[in-house]
Amino acid sequence: MSVAELPTIGPRDDRLADVGRLVVRCPDRPGIVAAVSGLMAAVGANITDSQQHSSDPSGGTFFLRLEFFLADLAGRWAELEQRLAALAGEFGMTWRLTEAAHRPRLAVFVSRTDHVLQELIYRVRSGDLRAELAAVVSNHPDLEPVARAAGIPFHHVAVTADTKAEAEAAALALIGDVDLVVLARYMQIVSADFCARFPERLINIHHSFLPAFVGANPYQAAHDRGVKLIGATAHYVTPELDAGPIIEQEVARIDHRATVEDMRRIGRYVERQVLAQAVTWHVEDRVIVDGAKTIVFA
Amino acid sequence: MSVAELPTIGPRDDRLADVGRLVVRCPDRPGIVAAVSGLMAAVGANITDSQQHSSDPSGGTFFLRLEFFLADLAGRWAELEQRLAALAGEFGMTWRLTEAAHRPRLAVFVSRTDHVLQELIYRVRSGDLRAELAAVVSNHPDLEPVARAAGIPFHHVAVTADTKAEAEAAALALIGDVDLVVLARYMQIVSADFCARFPERLINIHHSFLPAFVGANPYQAAHDRGVKLIGATAHYVTPELDAGPIIEQEVARIDHRATVEDMRRIGRYVERQVLAQAVTWHVEDRVIVDGAKTIVFA
Amino acid sequence: MSVAELPTIGPRDDRLADVGRLVVRCPDRPGIVAAVSGLMAAVGANITDSQQHSSDPSGGTFFLRLEFFLADLAGRWAELEQRLAALAGEFGMTWRLTEAAHRPRLAVFVSRTDHVLQELIYRVRSGDLRAELAAVVSNHPDLEPVARAAGIPFHHVAVTADTKAEAEAAALALIGDVDLVVLARYMQIVSADFCARFPERLINIHHSFLPAFVGANPYQAAHDRGVKLIGATAHYVTPELDAGPIIEQEVARIDHRATVEDMRRIGRYVERQVLAQAVTWHVEDRVIVDGAKTIVFA
Amino acid sequence: MSVAELPTIGPRDDRLADVGRLVVRCPDRPGIVAAVSGLMAAVGANITDSQQHSSDPSGGTFFLRLEFFLADLAGRWAELEQRLAALAGEFGMTWRLTEAAHRPRLAVFVSRTDHVLQELIYRVRSGDLRAELAAVVSNHPDLEPVARAAGIPFHHVAVTADTKAEAEAAALALIGDVDLVVLARYMQIVSADFCARFPERLINIHHSFLPAFVGANPYQAAHDRGVKLIGATAHYVTPELDAGPIIEQEVARIDHRATVEDMRRIGRYVERQVLAQAVTWHVEDRVIVDGAKTIVFA
Repeated sequence: MSVAELPTIGPRDDRLADVGRLVVRCPDRPGIVAAVSGLMAAVGANITDSQQHSSDPSGGTFFLRLEFFLADLAGRWAELEQRLAALAGEFGMTWRLTEAAHRPRLAVFVSRTDHVLQELIYRVRSGDLRAELAAVVSNHPDLEPVARAAGIPFHHVAVTADTKAEAEAAALALIGDVDLVVLARYMQIVSADFCARFPERLINIHHSFLPAFVGANPYQAAHDRGVKLIGATAHYVTPELDAGPIIEQEVARIDHRATVEDMRRIGRYVERQVLAQAVTWHVEDRVIVDGAKTIVFA
Repeated sequence: MSVAELPTIGPRDDRLADVGRLVVRCPDRPGIVAAVSGLMAAVGANITDSQQHSSDPSGGTFFLRLEFFLADLAGRWAELEQRLAALAGEFGMTWRLTEAAHRPRLAVFVSRTDHVLQELIYRVRSGDLRAELAAVVSNHPDLEPVARAAGIPFHHVAVTADTKAEAEAAALALIGDVDLVVLARYMQIVSADFCARFPERLINIHHSFLPAFVGANPYQAAHDRGVKLIGATAHYVTPELDAGPIIEQEVARIDHRATVEDMRRIGRYVERQVLAQAVTWHVEDRVIVDGAKTIVFA
Repeated sequence: MSVAELPTIGPRDDRLADVGRLVVRCPDRPGIVAAVSGLMAAVGANITDSQQHSSDPSGGTFFLRLEFFLADLAGRWAELEQRLAALAGEFGMTWRLTEAAHRPRLAVFVSRTDHVLQELIYRVRSGDLRAELAAVVSNHPDLEPVARAAGIPFHHVAVTADTKAEAEAAALALIGDVDLVVLARYMQIVSADFCARFPERLINIHHSFLPAFVGANPYQAAHDRGVKLIGATAHYVTPELDAGPIIEQEVARIDHRATVEDMRRIGRYVERQVLAQAVTWHVEDRVIVDGAKTIVFA
Repeated sequence: MSVAELPTIGPRDDRLADVGRLVVRCPDRPGIVAAVSGLMAAVGANITDSQQHSSDPSGGTFFLRLEFFLADLAGRWAELEQRLAALAGEFGMTWRLTEAAHRPRLAVFVSRTDHVLQELIYRVRSGDLRAELAAVVSNHPDLEPVARAAGIPFHHVAVTADTKAEAEAAALALIGDVDLVVLARYMQIVSADFCARFPERLINIHHSFLPAFVGANPYQAAHDRGVKLIGATAHYVTPELDAGPIIEQEVARIDHRATVEDMRRIGRYVERQVLAQAVTWHVEDRVIVDGAKTIVFA
């Protein structure tokens, strides 16, 4: 999959109108940075942030993320794309150019618990997460008031084992074009077809420190094992359950007094933090999938 | 197993001569604290620290740890034991009474890496770990200079798949009576017989966040999975590998730049901290095993 | 000041109807725990949690917090108070007996930023903070919609240097009887008279790691000093600015890239966590003021 | 001060013989990265790590740190320096080119506590800190055995208020040429002259979370204030006490039970971690002083 193929849909923010971001991936070899930064200098862009990574300095893959300021970015866009396309041919690059002002459209899938959804709503409102919450989808009606109060369209799509395919089709029709789907404690396993619709654009929060405690009741499992830390993991979703590339993980300390219910309660604060962080990094083009792993230019 | 049966062997520290510790476990019911604290008041002891836990307030097990000051503790010891034995009969208690001045004897099993051993040596010398390092046993000769420099007897006991039983027997003979055996990155699986010799007195450091990445090469496994945190787990050893009651866990953050070797290097600092903390808590009678878990009165 | 004098006002929660909490403070001496736990056993209460602290084992102040279950707690209340009063006379105790079911009434003072208020609203709704948000007071009208959406009465009370006394009087009249006043990024210094109205019942969040960076613009000061961690401090308010007993502190890591605005943004997440934690501990009778410090039975 | 002026003294490690590091500072403007990476590509160097920072994208200072592989680095050194000097003239750069194989010489100043010194010794031995401990200097004889056991020359230089100048002169003569001086809980204030001898090459560990609790007894001050976190700060030393640029800070959680002595004990583990981390970053050319602050390319 090419990072250059990721779509960009949704409203823009004119305050950042002349800030651009470039994400590049290509086979590693000397001269890549010189070529890319030379291109940027040639068009008059000022690079304000640059991060890079070589998966293996002796001949692996090279990853680069730039933020830059370029006066009249919109007017220069076609030229920039043209030059990048030429360079990409030379170095075998996949690349993605985005405007920082662009606000990606997010669909959030939930079930009955609202802590992660509330956090996403808060962060969008506060401006800490630059995105548009385009739709909330749930297999239960409970959280409709939360979505409505935030002015987000809410879609109740019931799911049973027999109707998963129809339900997913219905949900897809309802949410329309979105840049990212977030499973915010959505207690359903999505199909492989659904995953395939959102390659590297489908993020889940798993309520444990993966790969420990995969499955449906990780806090009970953690309690039974007597762990001293509980965790949460945000990851891209792939057809293999709980096995997609990890974006972010965090833990919280518990002690022997913690019941399963205490662990769920404490875990909610870890989950909302981890998922919101992962979504923010994704939205800011800071996450690049590299096989089974991620590179996060935080 | 009864906490009252744990042996106490080794030298004493006269500065803490009149400080005692009592650890109690019994079926939960009203009146336990009143009875124990009444006994303490009756003998004139001043309770300076008290922690308790009910596994299930509606009828589980009750756990209590007291620290107390009692003038002429040694002279009053027999009386205290007699009174506690009487109370224990009434409440169905197992109990353990220790002098804070007692310094437990530790045997440390290592292989080739010294970071955990060095930390234990430092903490004993600094007084932060009140114990005596009675012996270092290794299946390799590499760390003999480290042990010798610290004035600790070193025993090289080679182990092969065919000679495990003899090797363990030889090691046991060499270390003599010890209160606790610490597996400080000892790269051998000890036998069920060996475990049975040290019930709740055999602590291992596992170089991952258990139960993730059991087995011999957890950092490689963590690297392959692309985790964002690596961890270490100190646990009591039971015959089932990596499944004994967890005493302490900690994690460290890594990012996509970390190689397996980086993870090993960072992990060493987590391992030494976690193991040293677990051993210290054990030595201070702060850890009580409750089935597959531990209660830690930290 | 006596902990026994703290008022209890507001609605009750019948699910916890028979759970009580006792907080005791008295001169330290042998026999206190025996006496208190004996009293509890005598009335048939089952102590489910107990924490204690001696400020100085050789003759300081003793602090105790108990949670207990007692069937028909309401019906037994008068008897319990009578017995405690008798014991208190003997030991020189101040004490406070509360029902866990009681939901204290909180007044929250804000200015223009809503992150801490939003967090309190979320925690009350989720049940993690057992309290009633009785009123929001602000010197600006901005957050009225936030309060209204949560069903909390909102009072706009403008304040100028010349009208502080009248403004505080007006605010007091508007909020009525409350158990606790929370200054949730209220950008006004309250008067000594106001502090005196809420002894140990007035909590502020200061947006720095006190005692560093007292005053009005701590993030700018932290930025100027080039710190690598920023923090927040929840404390009881006393007439001396930013000097009251600290309840909770937390930090977040930053690096050289952080602007003052980044620090404010990151700091908001630390502030909401620290303030919400402190308020929760207070509401659960876990905080005892001991001179210039607090004891927190977390 | 120019980063290019920092001296490089001491033994080399041939395993890293062809790895170089370049640190650059200059007025920000478009084209710097293109020029530097173009130079690197021109000589055939493969950039394996690159980090950069703009103090103010609209016209401040630009900072860059590169790690690169260049076959026969030693043989190409003169050419590289020549090219960099030319580029530096064009962009107004100060720059520093080092071999990763170079092991800087460190002098460690201590008084009576050994925890930080022990940590430095451990990290050098383990290879985690690539440096040579060239000398230990102390105003007390206590730690001579620690230094001797590690094979490090130990110099006892007594200091009184009247003899500070002579003592510093004597210490300077004894340690000879060193790259870095580390004050590892050295309980003396060094003179402004001494500071001037080691600009940006003199690191101290302060046992508090600066700027809180400057001065000689910060743990007592922290105890008196009732803080819930204690910290340590590693910073470059300037003539103004405890005011130099901060390199690293860390905290540890305490509670109301902590005595001043407990805080000292817990603090030792924070101090050794913070100081060792700061020294490692310095030795790896990851720290750049920017006025009163540092940029740390960790």
